[in-house]
Amino acid sequence: MAKRSVSIEGALVALVDEKKYKTVKDILVTMNPADVVSVFEDMEPDRVQLLFRMLPKETAADVFVEMSPENQQMLIKGFSDVQLKEFFDELYIDDAVDIIEEMPANVVERILSQADPQARKQINEILRYPENSAGSLMTTEYVSLRPEMTVSEAILRIRRTGVDKETIYTCYVTQKNKLLGFVSVKDLLVSQNDNATMEEMMDTNVISVNTFTDQEEVAQMFSKYDFIALPVVDTENRLVGIITVDDAMDVMEDEVTEDFSIMGGITPSDKTYLRSSTLEVFKRRIPWLMLLMVTATFTSMIINKFEAALAAQAALTAFIPMLMDTGGNSGSQASITVIRALTLNEIDFKDIFKVLWKEIRVAVLCGLALSTVCFLKVWFIDRALLGNSDITLLVAIVITLSIAVTVFLAKVIGGFLPMVAKKIGFDPAVMASPLITTAVDALSLLVYFGIATMLLFK
Amino acid sequence: MAKRSVSIEGALVALVDEKKYKTVKDILVTMNPADVVSVFEDMEPDRVQLLFRMLPKETAADVFVEMSPENQQMLIKGFSDVQLKEFFDELYIDDAVDIIEEMPANVVERILSQADPQARKQINEILRYPENSAGSLMTTEYVSLRPEMTVSEAILRIRRTGVDKETIYTCYVTQKNKLLGFVSVKDLLVSQNDNATMEEMMDTNVISVNTFTDQEEVAQMFSKYDFIALPVVDTENRLVGIITVDDAMDVMEDEVTEDFSIMGGITPSDKTYLRSSTLEVFKRRIPWLMLLMVTATFTSMIINKFEAALAAQAALTAFIPMLMDTGGNSGSQASITVIRALTLNEIDFKDIFKVLWKEIRVAVLCGLALSTVCFLKVWFIDRALLGNSDITLLVAIVITLSIAVTVFLAKVIGGFLPMVAKKIGFDPAVMASPLITTAVDALSLLVYFGIATMLLFK
Repeated sequence: MAKRSVSIEGALVALVDEKKYKTVKDILVTMNPADVVSVFEDMEPDRVQLLFRMLPKETAADVFVEMSPENQQMLIKGFSDVQLKEFFDELYIDDAVDIIEEMPANVVERILSQADPQARKQINEILRYPENSAGSLMTTEYVSLRPEMTVSEAILRIRRTGVDKETIYTCYVTQKNKLLGFVSVKDLLVSQNDNATMEEMMDTNVISVNTFTDQEEVAQMFSKYDFIALPVVDTENRLVGIITVDDAMDVMEDEVTEDFSIMGGITPSDKTYLRSSTLEVFKRRIPWLMLLMVTATFTSMIINKFEAALAAQAALTAFIPMLMDTGGNSGSQASITVIRALTLNEIDFKDIFKVLWKEIRVAVLCGLALSTVCFLKVWFIDRALLGNSDITLLVAIVITLSIAVTVFLAKVIGGFLPMVAKKIGFDPAVMASPLITTAVDALSLLVYFGIATMLLFK
Repeated sequence: MAKRSVSIEGALVALVDEKKYKTVKDILVTMNPADVVSVFEDMEPDRVQLLFRMLPKETAADVFVEMSPENQQMLIKGFSDVQLKEFFDELYIDDAVDIIEEMPANVVERILSQADPQARKQINEILRYPENSAGSLMTTEYVSLRPEMTVSEAILRIRRTGVDKETIYTCYVTQKNKLLGFVSVKDLLVSQNDNATMEEMMDTNVISVNTFTDQEEVAQMFSKYDFIALPVVDTENRLVGIITVDDAMDVMEDEVTEDFSIMGGITPSDKTYLRSSTLEVFKRRIPWLMLLMVTATFTSMIINKFEAALAAQAALTAFIPMLMDTGGNSGSQASITVIRALTLNEIDFKDIFKVLWKEIRVAVLCGLALSTVCFLKVWFIDRALLGNSDITLLVAIVITLSIAVTVFLAKVIGGFLPMVAKKIGFDPAVMASPLITTAVDALSLLVYFGIATMLLFK
């Protein structure tokens, strides 16, 4: 894909420079809006502006919606008021709102002053919902039918009004704005009886979300129920909008990117990697690095406290990294598994004992396997093969026991913390890798030196 | 959501035990298939079998498709041959194939022997495509139109044949099986001219995938182009099937779960966490733990080699964990960011110098910030406040310099390895957290002792 857009980009730039605008237009007509956006991304603003004006009207709206806010703002600046009005009339309401949310106040004002009163009202309504809520994601343009309409009447209504709707494939049956049920266009089209009413045909078992439902939950519902649209109702079950599957997929991708960021100790951002400036990337990464570096003071303090013991048994120092890494990896395996299961709603806080019991059993198996191999490695490789004579039988036993206990604690903490985080309303991913690793680091050192003190220095 | 299903589950079990089957049926009718599946998941097999027989026919097929393979197999065993045939006739071909892929050979044979010849042929065709390919994901049931058909004829054809198709909303225009273009049902319905032909109306700029296209790429295309269906063609551009958006969403979720698993050092699996046995979870986790524990031999060897130096400068040992953690975190921040950008096709191998240049600049900023704070912390907290008199100015400088160099190397490696992995055909996620952390661990120790040797023991 990427290769293709690059070569097209080169061709377009060359053709524009040669002023072969007719050919440029011919090429643009054959291109999918998403591909045009990819091409624009790496182009200079002047060229983007020039090419954008050559796009067919229908494509232009789709391209505009997907562009970076910087490019959108640049293009809006170039529009006359009349052009701006014509252009925003072409957009679906939810897309218009998405764009407006990214614009500075003066541009927003200009857009709203040009929008027709009906559209302005709808835009303002959606803007009022909290970010990341179903209300802010929905579009107010949907097909509504009345319960007494027949199949023929319903099809006629869709044919007359469907042009402006983002999807016509799921229609909602309402009475005084209350959501009663839904029918799919497929059901209408394949119906054997043209006189059946919507009341007879509709599925009254409607699954809907509230305007304040979190967008992550909305995305989960799409993938659970295989919808192509989901109705949004207010607290009195009045239909206020619908969310379409393409928006749900975008939410899914954003949420996944966010989870990856948080688990990697990075402040999430809507900007792509290459579009973020060095300073922005730095600002997103430095807080966790700083925090974790400073909290490492604890591990330093623990090691200092046992300095005398380490000096007496020099062999112990060499195994600190292995112990900490094995503990950290064991913990993050558990936490990543549990966080993912929580995200997919496979588990819930009520399952906490099931989760802990499973992690305990897995931890016992992992602990046994790792400590056996660890003992063999320390005894036969490190001591016999590599000739480290500092390793006595007691030292080997201390290392082996520490591995077993650390793995056990790490898995239990890794399974437990994300569930508790979710229960008390935190994002479970925040508890993941970096934080658990640091906690397990300190703990594994305490276990190590504790066991060493008991067995070696009693 | 989960809470609701739990309480319904309890109610259903109680009602079944009291033999109030009429009420049970009434409840089941109101439930969405996906919710029925959730309820069945925690139920005993006997009850599942009993309740399944009470489901309305249409719901039964949808429920069956989403159930665990164990439950599917149990239900199939209970079917008579006639029931089995009737049941599989209800399913869409791609769903039937998904089920068959999970069944043992004797069950597969029984299903195929009952399927009608046409369906059997289609099932066998799809079964021949490699797992995770577009061919194995597609359904062969789609609406195809001929170029000379008019709008009225096309709508008539959809109304007559649409009932058995998974989606009717995108129709494909073909001639001698070659894919010429597509029209949406929306375009047909809102068309002002009933006599326009498909040839005039269709969009010939069709984006399609090959039967062998990887399913991850397929899912990416859905979210890029906002499709609700995507045509699948063979090498000669003959239409062989379509993939629908609900299947693409499932693929997206599975791929994300797989990425999370790999990055956490866990062998991916299709089974959910709670459905996996302790032994299965253990087997998926132990290989990486074992590998990383054993490769930690290198860190042990490095520390042993510098044992004399550590003994002479006792203060150095205490900062080993901080140095390794900061390096590991810096590296995984870079690798997670780059892996995610690669997955979303935001970057490509050709961007490697852009990525490295960005990581280098970020690394310089992070290195400066961290080493400044590190110096202040070591000098004013560890030495002055905590009274660690082993820390000389030279020791503080060694620690500070090591942090700066380690962060730099970690970020460059973290940005570089995933891109190279992808280029040579590996999953970039495999290079993530655990492996990079181990590499950076060894490297950070070498940097630390290298700098210490130069400055302290020259």
